[in-house]
Amino acid sequence: MGKATIGIGLVGSGFMGRCHANAFRAVGGLFDLPVAPALTILADATPDLAERGAAALGFDRATGDWQALVDDPAVDIVAITAPNLLHAPIAQAAIAAGKTVYCEKPLSTTAALAEQMMQAAEAAGVVTLVGFNFLRNPMIRLARDIITSGEIGAVTGFRGRHAENYMANPEVPHSFRTDPAGGGALADIGSHIVSMARYLLGPVAQVQADCVTVVPDRPIRPGGTERAPVLVDDMTHALMRFDSGVLGSLEANWAATARTMDLSWEITGTRGALAFSQERMNDLLLHSGAPGRSGYTRIEAGPAHPPYGQFCPAPGHHLGFNDLKVIEVAELLNAHAGGPACGPDFREAWEVQKVIEAMQRSARDRTWVAP
Amino acid sequence: MGKATIGIGLVGSGFMGRCHANAFRAVGGLFDLPVAPALTILADATPDLAERGAAALGFDRATGDWQALVDDPAVDIVAITAPNLLHAPIAQAAIAAGKTVYCEKPLSTTAALAEQMMQAAEAAGVVTLVGFNFLRNPMIRLARDIITSGEIGAVTGFRGRHAENYMANPEVPHSFRTDPAGGGALADIGSHIVSMARYLLGPVAQVQADCVTVVPDRPIRPGGTERAPVLVDDMTHALMRFDSGVLGSLEANWAATARTMDLSWEITGTRGALAFSQERMNDLLLHSGAPGRSGYTRIEAGPAHPPYGQFCPAPGHHLGFNDLKVIEVAELLNAHAGGPACGPDFREAWEVQKVIEAMQRSARDRTWVAP
Amino acid sequence: MGKATIGIGLVGSGFMGRCHANAFRAVGGLFDLPVAPALTILADATPDLAERGAAALGFDRATGDWQALVDDPAVDIVAITAPNLLHAPIAQAAIAAGKTVYCEKPLSTTAALAEQMMQAAEAAGVVTLVGFNFLRNPMIRLARDIITSGEIGAVTGFRGRHAENYMANPEVPHSFRTDPAGGGALADIGSHIVSMARYLLGPVAQVQADCVTVVPDRPIRPGGTERAPVLVDDMTHALMRFDSGVLGSLEANWAATARTMDLSWEITGTRGALAFSQERMNDLLLHSGAPGRSGYTRIEAGPAHPPYGQFCPAPGHHLGFNDLKVIEVAELLNAHAGGPACGPDFREAWEVQKVIEAMQRSARDRTWVAP
Amino acid sequence: MGKATIGIGLVGSGFMGRCHANAFRAVGGLFDLPVAPALTILADATPDLAERGAAALGFDRATGDWQALVDDPAVDIVAITAPNLLHAPIAQAAIAAGKTVYCEKPLSTTAALAEQMMQAAEAAGVVTLVGFNFLRNPMIRLARDIITSGEIGAVTGFRGRHAENYMANPEVPHSFRTDPAGGGALADIGSHIVSMARYLLGPVAQVQADCVTVVPDRPIRPGGTERAPVLVDDMTHALMRFDSGVLGSLEANWAATARTMDLSWEITGTRGALAFSQERMNDLLLHSGAPGRSGYTRIEAGPAHPPYGQFCPAPGHHLGFNDLKVIEVAELLNAHAGGPACGPDFREAWEVQKVIEAMQRSARDRTWVAP
Repeated sequence: MGKATIGIGLVGSGFMGRCHANAFRAVGGLFDLPVAPALTILADATPDLAERGAAALGFDRATGDWQALVDDPAVDIVAITAPNLLHAPIAQAAIAAGKTVYCEKPLSTTAALAEQMMQAAEAAGVVTLVGFNFLRNPMIRLARDIITSGEIGAVTGFRGRHAENYMANPEVPHSFRTDPAGGGALADIGSHIVSMARYLLGPVAQVQADCVTVVPDRPIRPGGTERAPVLVDDMTHALMRFDSGVLGSLEANWAATARTMDLSWEITGTRGALAFSQERMNDLLLHSGAPGRSGYTRIEAGPAHPPYGQFCPAPGHHLGFNDLKVIEVAELLNAHAGGPACGPDFREAWEVQKVIEAMQRSARDRTWVAP
Repeated sequence: MGKATIGIGLVGSGFMGRCHANAFRAVGGLFDLPVAPALTILADATPDLAERGAAALGFDRATGDWQALVDDPAVDIVAITAPNLLHAPIAQAAIAAGKTVYCEKPLSTTAALAEQMMQAAEAAGVVTLVGFNFLRNPMIRLARDIITSGEIGAVTGFRGRHAENYMANPEVPHSFRTDPAGGGALADIGSHIVSMARYLLGPVAQVQADCVTVVPDRPIRPGGTERAPVLVDDMTHALMRFDSGVLGSLEANWAATARTMDLSWEITGTRGALAFSQERMNDLLLHSGAPGRSGYTRIEAGPAHPPYGQFCPAPGHHLGFNDLKVIEVAELLNAHAGGPACGPDFREAWEVQKVIEAMQRSARDRTWVAP
Repeated sequence: MGKATIGIGLVGSGFMGRCHANAFRAVGGLFDLPVAPALTILADATPDLAERGAAALGFDRATGDWQALVDDPAVDIVAITAPNLLHAPIAQAAIAAGKTVYCEKPLSTTAALAEQMMQAAEAAGVVTLVGFNFLRNPMIRLARDIITSGEIGAVTGFRGRHAENYMANPEVPHSFRTDPAGGGALADIGSHIVSMARYLLGPVAQVQADCVTVVPDRPIRPGGTERAPVLVDDMTHALMRFDSGVLGSLEANWAATARTMDLSWEITGTRGALAFSQERMNDLLLHSGAPGRSGYTRIEAGPAHPPYGQFCPAPGHHLGFNDLKVIEVAELLNAHAGGPACGPDFREAWEVQKVIEAMQRSARDRTWVAP
Repeated sequence: MGKATIGIGLVGSGFMGRCHANAFRAVGGLFDLPVAPALTILADATPDLAERGAAALGFDRATGDWQALVDDPAVDIVAITAPNLLHAPIAQAAIAAGKTVYCEKPLSTTAALAEQMMQAAEAAGVVTLVGFNFLRNPMIRLARDIITSGEIGAVTGFRGRHAENYMANPEVPHSFRTDPAGGGALADIGSHIVSMARYLLGPVAQVQADCVTVVPDRPIRPGGTERAPVLVDDMTHALMRFDSGVLGSLEANWAATARTMDLSWEITGTRGALAFSQERMNDLLLHSGAPGRSGYTRIEAGPAHPPYGQFCPAPGHHLGFNDLKVIEVAELLNAHAGGPACGPDFREAWEVQKVIEAMQRSARDRTWVAP
């Protein structure tokens, strides 16, 4: 209704593709944006897949050729949810076409490639955003505000983790996730806790990790009997020193039998502390120490914690996972329309990837490594 | 894309109006429906409000006259989020026009009026649905399945509550909520726990309640200094006997200082028990008693609990409040298209209202009352 | 070492007898008391049982005749853990002998008998204490201090419960617990939550309860096949109005399949709230509402909460159930030695019993009853 | 009462001395032991301190000379709660005198000294026990049984921590805790989580740690203004590989502002998982994955988990910290009387200390170290 329409070209219609589509559909009714997104083209591996995806997700057109999507003048924003190996070529093409690029994590399979993507994007001056959606949680923004304001004093320690169980079953077959080029638990979900650690506490100076493969071999194909060894980590533990001198540790584990979403951390400060788990994504624990009243306060998400109020005017009504993607898309559209820069951009995603690779190298070489 | 388009006429653009609009926008990308909803007309108290609401929420047209919306041939489903007093006239008009009616709770301000609405709807044979959205939670459906299957044995006890704090502040002014015609904590949120108790355990045979007004007077207008006494309950406690003989109790409280969404219950059976709180809406606690391993198991919502999988293929990713409304709308659209009947329909909403009024009467007369 | 020795005569060597003995043994090393308790005589149903109990628990002498224990000049304090029916005769004898009387709850099988015991004790001027040990928890004392100080404003609501599962199994046989004279869940454990409600919020003005028998019959003897109907309540729910006008409710349930010690409550005030469960006996939840930081704070027991510091100089080290009895015994010994009066005394226990009987009468007569 | 009396000689009357005394007093009434402990002699730094301690804790005699205590023929067991530097000389003297030795952790200030103590004890054939009391928790024994039985499959990962806040305040002065000879957070409380990790998962093959000092300087004396730098760690994070190949990590932190007793861990297996925190010392979380019912079960301590039943015949009644020491003392007395060997003995304490020192060395040398 009077707003400029922004054409969205989405590559991929799997888990994350659906999630992107849903976010672009919903965002206009929840956020007051300067522009209106339109679901313009869906690309997938084959024309048939693309047709079905477009029908299911409400896109106007479909294509089996992502290059056509990128080149289409009706597409303003290229959203990439294709397999990791395709992130770089699609993003590079989109940058070359001057499009805003919205790419799922990990940005690329290597830090070197991520660096090239970042350099191309910065040279072209296009808006970029990488989908570390857990950062969009209002409680994470609140945590950063609390840390930045000095409310918990100087930070002294960090303990983080991202543990899930989706690869715990030895019958889960090989896939891009177990491809030695860019795969493994650390790259796949460790990147979430690394990006969150950087978001909250700043750059990482040194790391020392240890990686293990818990499931020695997996079927080559779903349901198949032929098996091949697993060459990536199922679990990594790492020590880390931040530039600030703060000491911490983290775990990445996709074979954590008991966990479905333990993206969690505790940050200790000299005058208080914060704790969070994505398993309780609408809570933030804040510790402060009034005499005789000392303890963690469970702060519940509410309108006092933007942008929660866009979803519901009353506290306690809970955001869900998909809502985080809506917030991400709102920030992207605002940035695309000339508003405040959004992040993590390609540069930040490259920084995350450097930390991941430093951890991998430190595990291989059994020594401390600077990212 | 080949699906019949269903015209949605929404009355009201406040908290619940936004929630409805968001659900109709999002549902098509998440559920595989036989029909496609279109945001056709938004009605509000004035043309101006309606115009602004339509622009914000993405409706094609706007009107200040709900009767025009009801009569419009492009409208197939009338969604009512207007003030409670208007539920009956709008719904009756929609029924008369043969439209599917989707009405926010409470269905009406009195059980007698609700009965008339129910009778009209059943005579006309239209599809009706009342917005007790908390019933849509996959964990609530799971709870009912567990109870029905006998997994926890015969049910022996119920303890329920809906406690929030949105009226705890004495400076919250009078509104439809404090109107003696249909207002009060019991009617407003007690109806949620009553509907859930009926959903899980069946009809209620007898009740005995006690009601108190905690905040004696409130400003007549927002920010005003003139105050008037509060004539409705801020808090109600009630005993209840189900038709099955099961004994239980519940509390409705909108001045519960510490609570934002404690819609919670424990249901005890002879061989197990279940517990739930909307504050942890993605969990269901199930108790079973293996020797030496006895305790509550915290079941996390996941694809094993339909329709969670429509939102996310992986467990632990959390649904939010707005997702419950999407599920509600999916069931409504399926029923509208000739699929399985959805509920709670007007008859069930009338039953809930009878329980509420029996509680109010029992408190007034200081005696047990059958609904 | 220079302190007067106080002779303890304990009647009974079951669960509570052991608990008393342990408390009298331990108290001297934990509290700085003006007197030193000595385990002088143990009485039990037969001389043989008494001998074995005395050996196990470390008493100097044993007797099968409680009257002899009461009369023995070496006994200063008579501790009664005999079956409920014997509480009255033993206590009356001890009062007649001028002894301090420490009696397990319930004080007696009827309020009328409890009143006689109270009157005799007050006429004789002896120190009395009834074993509502859960009141001894430092966190309960803290809760009362917080309420009394006005820290949570004026109290507006109460919701309490004592739920356990020790009678859930239909094969648990009849015993004094199911004796219609003084038995039932309400009398047995409901008395704990009633005494705690009175301790925290003062007298109860009116009650309305409903009682059910969940297990229709039980074996007459352990392991036996002959069964007899159960004539007492397994579960009671009650509404209650305090003298202050505060409205509340409570549940007593010994067939609560999933619960082993859910002695719990939430107390709401105009400026905050408190919540507690004996399942987390070292925590007290305190809600206060700083803007954007609103939520329950989990206060952990520590030296800031007397008399925790008697057990451990560091916070977080947890008291256990038996420690509550040690605190009780410390207060008893101090009162016996002329220190501050301890409670609940026989008068308070009689008041509790009147509330219990009012609830039972209200359930029978289906009407509100004043205790 | 027919049982042999065992003379206890206790050195020290501080926090741990009181705890020992309480345990020896209480144990006889709770456990059915072959012998009866007597509180024979208390030794402390001065005769005056010893006299006061003996009076407070109920010992028959007092001495300012621990050698006299060790040599006294009435003393059968020497319990050492003196400052860490004295552990070695007292223990060596007690071993030389052929006494059973019960020593608080850490066994010594260096692993080398601990090894000498171990060798002396083994050569002399005396019973030894080191006070890693947290291992006595029935839930920890249950955890080990579950792991050993294969109930959670093969163990794949460990994540542990011991975090408290007793040194977080920069005004806490220097003491033996900050003495570079044997001090620091890792040695002080890290030893608890190391001992527990070994108890549950076996020997540790390799470690890599990082240590930081959070509080740069502290007062030399309590309340003083003169300060000296802190030369020990306030916080350590460590990677660890067990002999079994299992990867894990741990944190030791005595400046963890928000924590009073976070001795906690999660152990993941191929078919389940366990989680524990001393903050909920009466719970053990056990994960098992029935389809649609997957989640952590909170097992509550009860008589099914020995030796809980010695304290209370009913579940849910909670053990406290001091009860763990009672269990420890019961095992010690049984071993002293010729019953099953108790542990951790001096050999095991030496093994723990080797792990601690390996971590310290790895932090200094920035490399992996085998203990």
